[in-house]
Amino acid sequence: MFETIPTPAVLVDLDVAQANIEKFQRHADAAGLKLRPHIKTHKLPLVAKRQMAAGAVGITCQKISEARAMISQGGIDDVLLTFNIVGADKVAALKDLSGEVGLTVVADSFDVVDGLAKVFDDPAAPLSVMVECDTGAERCGVVTPEQAVAVASRIDAADGLRFAGLMTYPPVGRRRAVAEWLTTAARACEAAGLQVPLISTGGSPDMWDAEPLDWPTEYRIGTYIYNDRSLVQRGVCDWTDCALTVLATVVSVPTPDRAIIDAGSKVLTSDLLGLAGHGHVLGRPDITIAALSEEHGTLKAGDIDLKVGDRLRIVPNHACVVANMLDHVQLLEGGAPHKAMAVTARGLVW
Amino acid sequence: MFETIPTPAVLVDLDVAQANIEKFQRHADAAGLKLRPHIKTHKLPLVAKRQMAAGAVGITCQKISEARAMISQGGIDDVLLTFNIVGADKVAALKDLSGEVGLTVVADSFDVVDGLAKVFDDPAAPLSVMVECDTGAERCGVVTPEQAVAVASRIDAADGLRFAGLMTYPPVGRRRAVAEWLTTAARACEAAGLQVPLISTGGSPDMWDAEPLDWPTEYRIGTYIYNDRSLVQRGVCDWTDCALTVLATVVSVPTPDRAIIDAGSKVLTSDLLGLAGHGHVLGRPDITIAALSEEHGTLKAGDIDLKVGDRLRIVPNHACVVANMLDHVQLLEGGAPHKAMAVTARGLVW
Repeated sequence: MFETIPTPAVLVDLDVAQANIEKFQRHADAAGLKLRPHIKTHKLPLVAKRQMAAGAVGITCQKISEARAMISQGGIDDVLLTFNIVGADKVAALKDLSGEVGLTVVADSFDVVDGLAKVFDDPAAPLSVMVECDTGAERCGVVTPEQAVAVASRIDAADGLRFAGLMTYPPVGRRRAVAEWLTTAARACEAAGLQVPLISTGGSPDMWDAEPLDWPTEYRIGTYIYNDRSLVQRGVCDWTDCALTVLATVVSVPTPDRAIIDAGSKVLTSDLLGLAGHGHVLGRPDITIAALSEEHGTLKAGDIDLKVGDRLRIVPNHACVVANMLDHVQLLEGGAPHKAMAVTARGLVW
Repeated sequence: MFETIPTPAVLVDLDVAQANIEKFQRHADAAGLKLRPHIKTHKLPLVAKRQMAAGAVGITCQKISEARAMISQGGIDDVLLTFNIVGADKVAALKDLSGEVGLTVVADSFDVVDGLAKVFDDPAAPLSVMVECDTGAERCGVVTPEQAVAVASRIDAADGLRFAGLMTYPPVGRRRAVAEWLTTAARACEAAGLQVPLISTGGSPDMWDAEPLDWPTEYRIGTYIYNDRSLVQRGVCDWTDCALTVLATVVSVPTPDRAIIDAGSKVLTSDLLGLAGHGHVLGRPDITIAALSEEHGTLKAGDIDLKVGDRLRIVPNHACVVANMLDHVQLLEGGAPHKAMAVTARGLVW
């Protein structure tokens, strides 16, 4: 299988990825959602371009370096950075970036707002800033609608900043509670005299339930481009929708119930996402990937029925972290190896 | 703290690493063990050179690409590849490598031996091959001493291969059982007329208990160069022996018991190694790194007592995988930032 590709390799089937792009774009269009894919999953300008061509309003990035790569190599002109940008150096880098592209960032505290306001002080070219809201995921974000109003007011009061709406990274499976939280916060903002131009939410696990709120609504989505074992287990997609797989070779069959492959935690990663085992071997649902060391994976089955040199394709638990492990992915087109492509935005710091 | 270094960053304190090199080299010398460090932990030619300068007999690599990087940039001339090399392309690459350096590989089956023998067929320049033994770790390796003899005989019978001894990746904390396994297998080889030139074992968790067997004995060790939280928890080292740390910035303090940093699973990784939490915050043993998403870490404490912009140093659970995540590490010397260095051998496939 794909004998010209040395293993371990991360394979990206472009046809499957394209179908994933189009399928969810249609869903978003029909629902009246603006779609803003998160490039953290693929980190490839080529794929970002395809997402934009299909109808996305812009992209989401988590890092300034990711945005830079997508702008310079992907021709992207609209970026939302869903990360508190903290520190004078980073805010200065953000300032540079803002001259090149339509840019929006988030903030969830006066500290972050004030750090931005120190550098962005031109009322003629304000930076768009959304208020990040913690609607239950317990990561970043203001924890009450009242705090959302306070941070929004702080943004509004800064000459060089513009309040651009509310953003959340929602908990999975709690769509109704999230909608209520955001609606309450948006109403409170409006009651305080602050227009809410946009609400931004997202997440692949709940993607098929995505629907607009009472304000222009944007949906951010990352994993959907590749899908993975965690999303199959949640019923969001099928194995045939998984565009990213790891190609591995069996290097040892020590016992009738065990085989060892040349893919370990440095390719498949240790992300479990609540699952047992480290991935799904396509065509062999009886196999458990029972353990990973750095460069070895241990496969178990009642009858392992593999021999040294056999090649397997594995759907990883979590595609977003696997795509980040190697310098190159191997693109497939028409089901056949196409070419290796550098994962442009991986391994960077900012 | 280290304000010139953008976060998240992987810091490598060269003074601490040097002390770790020298301390275990002294132990190995005193015990009569040949030391062969595994470069998978650091992947830096600079550090491999230092290990050799301190008295190592050679290095261990897991991949052909790692060996190539160490040979070309580290001037290393003796390499053990502790991985079954499978596939015509890889064996051909191995052949190229064997012309440049003293090279030893492993095999645990007739399949692997026969694959090597197809390409290595020159009795005047035989490839050294050790038999990998599964002494309880249940990864690769023959599972009985009798199988070890069979694979050793197969190597010995191949014109272009030379039986170079026994190698194991031992289970932790079972030193005596491992020694018995290897001694039994070595005696059985000798009874079959096969000299056992060397036995190679290793592992950082049991490093201070390492001792030679009745044959020339080599000890392979990787994590000791940096150490990590897993080794501190096992009592192998102290926090001050940890040469690798992750520098992170607090980007949000949503509640009095929670703070969010800009280091997530794409730097700290999800490796737990049996521990609870995702790392140790130096100077703040009361903090638990309770959750990671890709670019965020969630810190919890009774009183988190941190503010946006604070910088923290984290000892990760598993240094070997963290060193593999970013393109560059930040070297420290004399406790101060020295320079950024590319992690030469990361992200490669072969």
